[in-house]
Amino acid sequence: MATRRIGIIVNGATGRMGYRQHLVRSLLAIQEQGGVTLSDGDRLLPDLLLVGRNQEKLATVAERHGLTNWTTDIDAALADPEYEVYFDALVTNLRVENLKKAIAAGKAIYTEKPTAETFEDALELARLAKEHGTVGGVVHDKLYLPGLLKLRRLIDADFFGRILSVRGEFGYWVYEGDWQSAQRPSWNYRAEDGGGIVADMFPHWNYVIEELFGRIEDVYAQTATHIGERWDETGEKFTATADDAAYGVFRLEGGAVVQMNSSWDVRVHRDELVEFQVDGTNGSAVVGLHSAHIQPREATPKPVWNPDVKDGHDYRADWIEVPDNAGPDGFDNGFKVQWEGFLRHVAEEPKDSAYPYDFLSGARGVRLAEAGLASSAEGRRIDLDPLTEV
Amino acid sequence: MATRRIGIIVNGATGRMGYRQHLVRSLLAIQEQGGVTLSDGDRLLPDLLLVGRNQEKLATVAERHGLTNWTTDIDAALADPEYEVYFDALVTNLRVENLKKAIAAGKAIYTEKPTAETFEDALELARLAKEHGTVGGVVHDKLYLPGLLKLRRLIDADFFGRILSVRGEFGYWVYEGDWQSAQRPSWNYRAEDGGGIVADMFPHWNYVIEELFGRIEDVYAQTATHIGERWDETGEKFTATADDAAYGVFRLEGGAVVQMNSSWDVRVHRDELVEFQVDGTNGSAVVGLHSAHIQPREATPKPVWNPDVKDGHDYRADWIEVPDNAGPDGFDNGFKVQWEGFLRHVAEEPKDSAYPYDFLSGARGVRLAEAGLASSAEGRRIDLDPLTEV
Amino acid sequence: MATRRIGIIVNGATGRMGYRQHLVRSLLAIQEQGGVTLSDGDRLLPDLLLVGRNQEKLATVAERHGLTNWTTDIDAALADPEYEVYFDALVTNLRVENLKKAIAAGKAIYTEKPTAETFEDALELARLAKEHGTVGGVVHDKLYLPGLLKLRRLIDADFFGRILSVRGEFGYWVYEGDWQSAQRPSWNYRAEDGGGIVADMFPHWNYVIEELFGRIEDVYAQTATHIGERWDETGEKFTATADDAAYGVFRLEGGAVVQMNSSWDVRVHRDELVEFQVDGTNGSAVVGLHSAHIQPREATPKPVWNPDVKDGHDYRADWIEVPDNAGPDGFDNGFKVQWEGFLRHVAEEPKDSAYPYDFLSGARGVRLAEAGLASSAEGRRIDLDPLTEV
Amino acid sequence: MATRRIGIIVNGATGRMGYRQHLVRSLLAIQEQGGVTLSDGDRLLPDLLLVGRNQEKLATVAERHGLTNWTTDIDAALADPEYEVYFDALVTNLRVENLKKAIAAGKAIYTEKPTAETFEDALELARLAKEHGTVGGVVHDKLYLPGLLKLRRLIDADFFGRILSVRGEFGYWVYEGDWQSAQRPSWNYRAEDGGGIVADMFPHWNYVIEELFGRIEDVYAQTATHIGERWDETGEKFTATADDAAYGVFRLEGGAVVQMNSSWDVRVHRDELVEFQVDGTNGSAVVGLHSAHIQPREATPKPVWNPDVKDGHDYRADWIEVPDNAGPDGFDNGFKVQWEGFLRHVAEEPKDSAYPYDFLSGARGVRLAEAGLASSAEGRRIDLDPLTEV
Repeated sequence: MATRRIGIIVNGATGRMGYRQHLVRSLLAIQEQGGVTLSDGDRLLPDLLLVGRNQEKLATVAERHGLTNWTTDIDAALADPEYEVYFDALVTNLRVENLKKAIAAGKAIYTEKPTAETFEDALELARLAKEHGTVGGVVHDKLYLPGLLKLRRLIDADFFGRILSVRGEFGYWVYEGDWQSAQRPSWNYRAEDGGGIVADMFPHWNYVIEELFGRIEDVYAQTATHIGERWDETGEKFTATADDAAYGVFRLEGGAVVQMNSSWDVRVHRDELVEFQVDGTNGSAVVGLHSAHIQPREATPKPVWNPDVKDGHDYRADWIEVPDNAGPDGFDNGFKVQWEGFLRHVAEEPKDSAYPYDFLSGARGVRLAEAGLASSAEGRRIDLDPLTEV
Repeated sequence: MATRRIGIIVNGATGRMGYRQHLVRSLLAIQEQGGVTLSDGDRLLPDLLLVGRNQEKLATVAERHGLTNWTTDIDAALADPEYEVYFDALVTNLRVENLKKAIAAGKAIYTEKPTAETFEDALELARLAKEHGTVGGVVHDKLYLPGLLKLRRLIDADFFGRILSVRGEFGYWVYEGDWQSAQRPSWNYRAEDGGGIVADMFPHWNYVIEELFGRIEDVYAQTATHIGERWDETGEKFTATADDAAYGVFRLEGGAVVQMNSSWDVRVHRDELVEFQVDGTNGSAVVGLHSAHIQPREATPKPVWNPDVKDGHDYRADWIEVPDNAGPDGFDNGFKVQWEGFLRHVAEEPKDSAYPYDFLSGARGVRLAEAGLASSAEGRRIDLDPLTEV
Repeated sequence: MATRRIGIIVNGATGRMGYRQHLVRSLLAIQEQGGVTLSDGDRLLPDLLLVGRNQEKLATVAERHGLTNWTTDIDAALADPEYEVYFDALVTNLRVENLKKAIAAGKAIYTEKPTAETFEDALELARLAKEHGTVGGVVHDKLYLPGLLKLRRLIDADFFGRILSVRGEFGYWVYEGDWQSAQRPSWNYRAEDGGGIVADMFPHWNYVIEELFGRIEDVYAQTATHIGERWDETGEKFTATADDAAYGVFRLEGGAVVQMNSSWDVRVHRDELVEFQVDGTNGSAVVGLHSAHIQPREATPKPVWNPDVKDGHDYRADWIEVPDNAGPDGFDNGFKVQWEGFLRHVAEEPKDSAYPYDFLSGARGVRLAEAGLASSAEGRRIDLDPLTEV
Repeated sequence: MATRRIGIIVNGATGRMGYRQHLVRSLLAIQEQGGVTLSDGDRLLPDLLLVGRNQEKLATVAERHGLTNWTTDIDAALADPEYEVYFDALVTNLRVENLKKAIAAGKAIYTEKPTAETFEDALELARLAKEHGTVGGVVHDKLYLPGLLKLRRLIDADFFGRILSVRGEFGYWVYEGDWQSAQRPSWNYRAEDGGGIVADMFPHWNYVIEELFGRIEDVYAQTATHIGERWDETGEKFTATADDAAYGVFRLEGGAVVQMNSSWDVRVHRDELVEFQVDGTNGSAVVGLHSAHIQPREATPKPVWNPDVKDGHDYRADWIEVPDNAGPDGFDNGFKVQWEGFLRHVAEEPKDSAYPYDFLSGARGVRLAEAGLASSAEGRRIDLDPLTEV
């Protein structure tokens, strides 16, 4: 069994996500385990070229991990035929420009989300990728969280019967920043800086819903800026202009309804920071990032509504935890698992075959955020077409 | 301290609610405790005249409780000046006609909800009541449930600071009726028989929200008939034509948002069959029919979103229970408490002064249900004017 | 809706089972509730004629319950055309003779089990019943226990997928009678008096297995008389000659295996005195007389056998209780439910249509006991043919 | 107190059991503690010679533990008179050949079980060992598990009085391998590869029963292949041809009955993966791998069978846990304890005295598996002679 090399340009390795999740915990971890196993038993070993704008930071990172290939010249990197994959973890407003260059250079592309700041740009990327036969992949990390993997398993086992509805609750209390410092950056709360919870979270909800429950046919959202004044990193008061909560209702192909709250102004009375309750004809599940509990119809109680008498029934005791069953090492890091899948796709599939989480998937995520904001502003439900071709 | 008599015509005392909640647990209980204490220390003692259509049933009920005044002649009863209050617990489709007669007869009126089957009729009743200077009261029992009384207490103590949002979750699994028998009557699931969860629950949500959080300025609702086939009391399959779930979003005067789910197709992963989470700048509460838990801002954790690491924090342990502090006998039965308030109002206030939960309040409840259904059909948010005058 | 009378001869109403379970808790309870409702809405009201051998006891029982019809003359009773049903709760060795008379008299027959002391006699009864077009019913009370009703419900819901195996454990410690008195009659432990746990319990296992899991194709049993000396009701020591434990293995049509222990020499380390564990491809259940717990495959742990390390996993916590969902009054008494079914069958079905638990079913139960004893004696598995016709 | 050396050839130290349980956790642990204490106070210190076929693996293992004596030449090793003990942890199909060589070479022999693939070969080994005056020992590790040590202690204390019966339940759910991967190797489920639960577990049950309860006089077993299709390590579907469950009944000298289930298709509703319930005239015990609970007759309840009424008694609360009483370090590793006993036997007993778990004991274990399979195939109980001499 031979070992094959695959060259990867890593642009943005000094940022928080790019460094920790992609470089250290995914690409270097893959190197350490001896590469990715292909279907013929061969091993695919990443060979990295770090790219960045800050020479000093780049050098520090490279040295810390014994890497020798790095450059601040992105154009030169893209021109090097030894590196067939381009990875982008830049800040969003630099992404489109760099992705376009990489498409033009004929690279396979793997990129952080969102692919663009506007749906128009995101769609243009998808169009260009199609034109150039580019293999494009977009990070969809939430799908690899243990809780959602267990949910996937429940769906595959046909545990739910027909899925009727999904209730999602995401959020926690983000401090205003005066009395106690805030735990998120202040730009998140300024529309003019690209902030807002819809822009941040709806792209995630899009792929989670699409992949687990089905296509979104329409969306209604009510956004709010519940906390109008916050304090920034320097203790300066500012006006919060972006939405900090969104109450969304999505209807899916087939009739299921997803009711999804996202909020930075909610105190957590749940087991986890995000939870989905899925109700189906044959059973229900409550799933968080890590845990999952189920209630099959055979264990479903038959409550009678009688406000007159205190109901002593312990409804939470009617649920049973879904075991990990993931071996002694537990579930692998989701970012790494997706990297392995993408690299396998690049190495083994025909040159222009579509990777499932591609630029179009990324574009649909950006579109959902835009439609959500429009829906709230206009007070109406907005239809979404399938958008499976560009 | 004298005892004064107050004559009350009880129409519909043989029905389930009329008999158990109003006759036995309210009016007879008030008689047994020696009447209602007025502000001057006098006692107001109800004197009852039962009215119904079925002579045999009426006689049985009267005999069981040692009552001697009953009649099947509603017109004669209304003509009797000894009885100044008319109470109505008939089925909804007989209500408007009887209330109109009672208004014309100059009675003070107390009635079960909904006051009418359509908003138009409900409004007409309010108009007539105003025209005749009728004191009108509508049952708003949920407000007297221990959980909501504690919520009222939290609001009065200004525990929340500014209330930002309310999340409500009502529902449980109603069996389809094939494999296990259903625990609700089948007409609830047929639109043609006046069924539907919006018609059933939105009038409740209207007064709960109005009284606790403020006026509803607009509504969006998405209804669904998740279970399309059910089995009736005789085991016969039928098509469910009414909505069995509704996902509602209400915006209140002042900017708070109420997101409220109602469903007969949801498995309960809560402490109670209905729960409201209220988030304010200074604290939050989770309130059911009976219990209430709070988290003041001083005890609010500052979670950091890091899906990478399993979050071991026990978020539920960050909440503390609100004690009943209601004396050794606990909270009194809500139906009775409201009866006492209404009778005191009739005895002590000027003849035409408005009781807070009056016909207009009843009409606003019916309106919210109609607007919710229209909103879902038309896919748009619907504005609601104040409707404090007719 | 009319009320129809049905005449029932009750033979053996002064014995323990006949009096308590059949007369008081079934037939008189049916009278009290106004009879059995038929499909056309009519009510079927039992009219009882008590028969017994001891005049004094009969009179006492009749008087206690305000009954006036009783006699010691069974032949006269059977000759009375006003009584179309004959019920038999006599001791087993008197049963065959009386049932034969009742068959000859053209009665519909309902009888306690076992129908006879030998399979030959039991089969002869079935043959005679067929010849005379007799509607025959045999008590199968265990099927109506709450635990088994819930098991039936799980099977109907197809909870198990394919059922692979059933483990049954019945028994408890019956005191020897010296140091502490025994809690069962001594004849149970003497073969010469018809004792033995196989004769007592295998007829039950036969219909439980048949009705819930399928036809028994073969049986292997190992019996034992673990305690060879016991003390009787008078404190006299005697030699125990009957089997007091039986270890049975039954194979069912379709390949499932039932492994069933019955013992009066076992200390109870279970939740109930009898428990069945049912394992299927999609889930498992542990069911007792009253409770039932399930584990769906989605909640099934994946244990790894490692005796080296203490296994801290709480395996019992992986199960969830099945709710009763039986309304505020719980499940009705099983003896009464079966009586209602039998009377409905007599009133509504064609004269000679077979009741599901008929004489042939009773005969199969007696056969299983005989085959079990033979299997143990001969040390071999014994095949059982379907025996659905006589 | 002197220290004496004892030379041990370790054949198969790179396999899972050989490496972990025998080399690291037993022999090296004995070296580390300064050897085995003999009855005269002297210390017996193992001197190891590793043998294997794969030079690279051997070198790795040796280096990791600072061992210098290793070879791939088994014949040379056996010819070396410095090493008087031969240990065998090879795969079963290589064992007979190597054991024969070691017998011929005059070594004392300690070996993993089963000693051979067939009873015939196992018996031949016993015969040869007797002929050559070989001291032979076979691994019987289960007897040293904490739970079984406590059971041994209960028996030695005559806690049970006369033992009447033993119920054993071994097993857990082994995943089929499609929806979730299987946790056991696929060859376990193929008869053609030596799989099957009878071959795997009956040799264990043989020595456990023999040593704790007495000689097995006859066996009946019903085997089954409940799951007919499984998926192997590569995700390929295959037909399961070996038995995956066995329902066994063993009768012991003296009349006790052991009923023993073994299954890979059972969901665990027990405290441990294997449990034995032992019932005796004076008391009962439920014993797992680690824990043991007892109920003396003085604490035995006297249940009355009354299915009519829900039995609220908590039968599990009638049992009390047996304490470890094993000192601060708990029970020592069973493999090591048996090694110490065997080495003491070799050092202190006359050259040809029998070690209790000898080749004949090993042969009886293989015989029980063969008899179990034959019993199931032929549908009959099979007698087993004592086989205490060859």
